[in-house]
Amino acid sequence: MGDRPPKWLEEAEDDFAYKRADFIVNPASRSTLRRPSRYQGDLKKKPGVKLLKRLHRRMQHHQRMLAAENERSVLIVLQAMDAAGKDSTVRRVFGPLNPATCKVFSFKAPSETDLDHDYLWRIHKEVPARGELGVFNRSHYEDVLIARVANLVPDRVWKKRFDHINHFEQMLTDEGCTILKFYLHVSKDYQEERLQRRLDLPEKHWKFNPADLVERERWPAYQRAFQSVFSRTTKKHAPWFVVPSERRWYRDLVIARTVCDTLDRMNPQPPEPTFDPEAVELV
Amino acid sequence: MGDRPPKWLEEAEDDFAYKRADFIVNPASRSTLRRPSRYQGDLKKKPGVKLLKRLHRRMQHHQRMLAAENERSVLIVLQAMDAAGKDSTVRRVFGPLNPATCKVFSFKAPSETDLDHDYLWRIHKEVPARGELGVFNRSHYEDVLIARVANLVPDRVWKKRFDHINHFEQMLTDEGCTILKFYLHVSKDYQEERLQRRLDLPEKHWKFNPADLVERERWPAYQRAFQSVFSRTTKKHAPWFVVPSERRWYRDLVIARTVCDTLDRMNPQPPEPTFDPEAVELV
Repeated sequence: MGDRPPKWLEEAEDDFAYKRADFIVNPASRSTLRRPSRYQGDLKKKPGVKLLKRLHRRMQHHQRMLAAENERSVLIVLQAMDAAGKDSTVRRVFGPLNPATCKVFSFKAPSETDLDHDYLWRIHKEVPARGELGVFNRSHYEDVLIARVANLVPDRVWKKRFDHINHFEQMLTDEGCTILKFYLHVSKDYQEERLQRRLDLPEKHWKFNPADLVERERWPAYQRAFQSVFSRTTKKHAPWFVVPSERRWYRDLVIARTVCDTLDRMNPQPPEPTFDPEAVELV
Repeated sequence: MGDRPPKWLEEAEDDFAYKRADFIVNPASRSTLRRPSRYQGDLKKKPGVKLLKRLHRRMQHHQRMLAAENERSVLIVLQAMDAAGKDSTVRRVFGPLNPATCKVFSFKAPSETDLDHDYLWRIHKEVPARGELGVFNRSHYEDVLIARVANLVPDRVWKKRFDHINHFEQMLTDEGCTILKFYLHVSKDYQEERLQRRLDLPEKHWKFNPADLVERERWPAYQRAFQSVFSRTTKKHAPWFVVPSERRWYRDLVIARTVCDTLDRMNPQPPEPTFDPEAVELV
């Protein structure tokens, strides 16, 4: 407990030309996909990868402090088109964290029991506990994305869900959870490249799902659905970030840096001891 | 499936002089405890008990249809002061229902894991599934009752919870759950009588909890807290009913009748068969 903050926290040097404003979705402006999906700023890959390692040390430190404090939690939501890189983001950005208090939950198609309840039921069960960092690989946003695009529910049903989701996230925030939502922005051409790779490499076959081709045909409908999600559900307390994701190392950096900055501001600290450490005598 | 509705459903005779308006909390009016806690209308106990049996047959029929339909659910919330009769209400009103699809959940003090999450986390997990009737013996309302009166959380925390609760219940309603909330109205004298009974009868000792005396001292504070609950959270889609509860048979009747009338209006029906029953040949 109470690790002293490492040197880099005091130095607070600027790792790279990261401006939160470049990626965050502003509810006032409609143009949310401002940076091209291949964007990588002025950075090159090699120094970028080195920077990520530094960010991982910061995240690891904050993770320990968050668990020691045991008061607040962080929820990270990842959404994207198929093959855009959600799984590799989880592995590369959150892989180095301690799985004891970094909980990843990948939401697949809902089970029969899930469908017997409201759509937030299975989500709420998995929200991170105090002291934890939770990562949702897909989330309740599927219930206003695929549910809308594939007509799984009538319009009058999904249209009410933006309010539900905002209220749900507001409640979580009020009760101590900090929420960050990331959209991995890739082009349709990039998706083709990644899907083709899954067909070409035998060791990737298991990742290919013919049903993904149906969703690929609905690309424009999904883009419209995502635009609604961004404009209706980006909130000061639960913002959306649109992350250029065709340079995977750059995507990792943007997400890691956004998470780190948030943790810097939260500044979790172990509680004051309720005893006098000097007075405790070990026999 | 598709039991024919029993005769009494067609007859629709008025069981007793029940007026929903006598018990429902109107958000416009402040005076919510309109009927005295010993109220029993013009009814006598003996015919009242007979009426309850008829209401049970109606509830049982609707319960079967609700399960067959498997689209909607009903959530019944019971709140009251200690010893007001929540347990006996569950036993006497919901006991005759089939426990396969009538799920009772009694919320006690939250566990350490519960406390590591937002207060609605443990509640949401237990909401009834489609086709089910759920009964909450205590509920999320404790988080604006005892949490407030016993100062378990700061003011700024519980004050935000009325909105959370309204939004949560709105979401449940939008997704197919019908909510009814009952307050068992008793006087402080009646509570004394019931607590004394728990002390006098050795077979009731296990129901006595010395901590209830602390809560009893806070009676006026609880009444104020309940008034806030009523005025802030009675909604058209999730109304509060204040039920005179010192005549237990009358309390049972009011609750059973309110539930029955709600189910009458919902009128659950089995789905149309997806096959032609005449064309199926059993060999």
